[in-house]
Amino acid sequence: MPQQFADRLLDACKTKGAPVCVGLDPVLERLPDAIDQADPVAAMETFCLGVIDVVADVVPAVKPQSACFERFGAPGVAVYHKVVKQAKDAGLIVVGDAKRGDIGTSSAHYAHGLLADPHGCDTLTVNGYLGGDGIEPFQQVAAEQGKGLFVLVRTSNPGGDAIQSLVLSDGRTVAEAVGDVVASLGSACVGESGYSNVGMVVGATKPEDAAKLRKRYPQQLFLVPGFGAQGGGAEDVRACFKPDGTGALITASRSVIYAFEKGDADWQQSVQAGAQQLRNEIADILSAQHE
Amino acid sequence: MPQQFADRLLDACKTKGAPVCVGLDPVLERLPDAIDQADPVAAMETFCLGVIDVVADVVPAVKPQSACFERFGAPGVAVYHKVVKQAKDAGLIVVGDAKRGDIGTSSAHYAHGLLADPHGCDTLTVNGYLGGDGIEPFQQVAAEQGKGLFVLVRTSNPGGDAIQSLVLSDGRTVAEAVGDVVASLGSACVGESGYSNVGMVVGATKPEDAAKLRKRYPQQLFLVPGFGAQGGGAEDVRACFKPDGTGALITASRSVIYAFEKGDADWQQSVQAGAQQLRNEIADILSAQHE
Repeated sequence: MPQQFADRLLDACKTKGAPVCVGLDPVLERLPDAIDQADPVAAMETFCLGVIDVVADVVPAVKPQSACFERFGAPGVAVYHKVVKQAKDAGLIVVGDAKRGDIGTSSAHYAHGLLADPHGCDTLTVNGYLGGDGIEPFQQVAAEQGKGLFVLVRTSNPGGDAIQSLVLSDGRTVAEAVGDVVASLGSACVGESGYSNVGMVVGATKPEDAAKLRKRYPQQLFLVPGFGAQGGGAEDVRACFKPDGTGALITASRSVIYAFEKGDADWQQSVQAGAQQLRNEIADILSAQHE
Repeated sequence: MPQQFADRLLDACKTKGAPVCVGLDPVLERLPDAIDQADPVAAMETFCLGVIDVVADVVPAVKPQSACFERFGAPGVAVYHKVVKQAKDAGLIVVGDAKRGDIGTSSAHYAHGLLADPHGCDTLTVNGYLGGDGIEPFQQVAAEQGKGLFVLVRTSNPGGDAIQSLVLSDGRTVAEAVGDVVASLGSACVGESGYSNVGMVVGATKPEDAAKLRKRYPQQLFLVPGFGAQGGGAEDVRACFKPDGTGALITASRSVIYAFEKGDADWQQSVQAGAQQLRNEIADILSAQHE
């Protein structure tokens, strides 16, 4: 029996010193000049592998954004899978950010394609709008592999409000209705840490909502995008954690992987410094909270 | 200026005699014995191209399910794109069933990868849980190409109820809240037919909801899964159409593409007969409604 995903993630965060995740969102226009861009897909691969090399000792996790790779069709998808494997080989926890969601057998196909391979990602983002029976096939494959899921509950973008923050006749928000489905499914796979392998995506730009959700879902780990470039700050981040400093994985992408744009240093050195800064910032926020 | 997607779809339905769509959901276990399955991905390709060959003269549209192809990683994705191209070359309208959804630049990446190529699908299924700013990048690429979208509003699976049929404090259901976002976006791209290029997915298994949504969204075409194998029948289908017989595209997959399982006939002949039966059933339902 492999160790549960939630426990593995918590251990990795402890080892590396902070619960942070570097988003791999490669876009051609922003790749370093030092990378030959004659073949766009090869350039993305070189860049992502180069980022992995320098962040693997600094952070516990990376999150490749599938959309960036799928933009280039099948060759891009091949690079996505290669990047995932390389990150795992480097000892990183890999969050596959594909936001898939369907029903029944179609969800099962996605789960097999994206989660079943031991060299594939450790956890996958899933869209739960189709309900519990759309999530369960992902959960089943995840369980077989000691892996996890993060289901979208409260996203970081402004437009999410028009749906997720609406209030139901029973007083819950739509986000809470989705969250309740997720928490119910997740109660079946709770690790020794007390956290479930089935977590939630909760953006870092809605601190009041995050605080409410943090209280409502004690067994769920939150994957928290939106820190840095998307506008989330220290206060927003704090709301995602329990008082003991566990409960969330803070992701940042552009502020780390494009850190070289700000200076003249070697691009990989800049990316590594960006990852260190992210780690230190979050560690500082958590130690301040703890005091 | 190319013809608007909604108008093209209506024309094609008229030409072929019924608003129906054959779902291409290839699974290895159900492929005909006549197809060599030594290479799974090649077998799926042979099967899908063989289905396209015999349904292209019978129905206006096909809907490849991306999950079936993605199950096999990058080689599967390559076949997905090949199948889409072949279907378009055969004169079919292609509904890419990928249910993608993200925010900002990530949605734009998906849209470019799946919709921007003129040889790519004519319309794409999208998950709107992330709100209008998650849908807009898809809409922008669709608009540039004279293509469309179908956004998930009310899905055909039982689990969808736990979220989509919840009632808000303002009396709307969650499905209607999502639908209102979609209809608002869609009002910017209405064709000569009076229908928008931005339609909705509305399952054929919830006739009361379908009837309410049909009335609420006069400009939206409904992509209607769930007919046949998923349990939707004639009455369910009727609720998705306006009295003039327009407004929906009825999809069926397993009942058509695996029609050969029931008899000893050549598999392609059986699939063609299955497609003809689907077309005739829906045409009959609509002519009965019209009388």
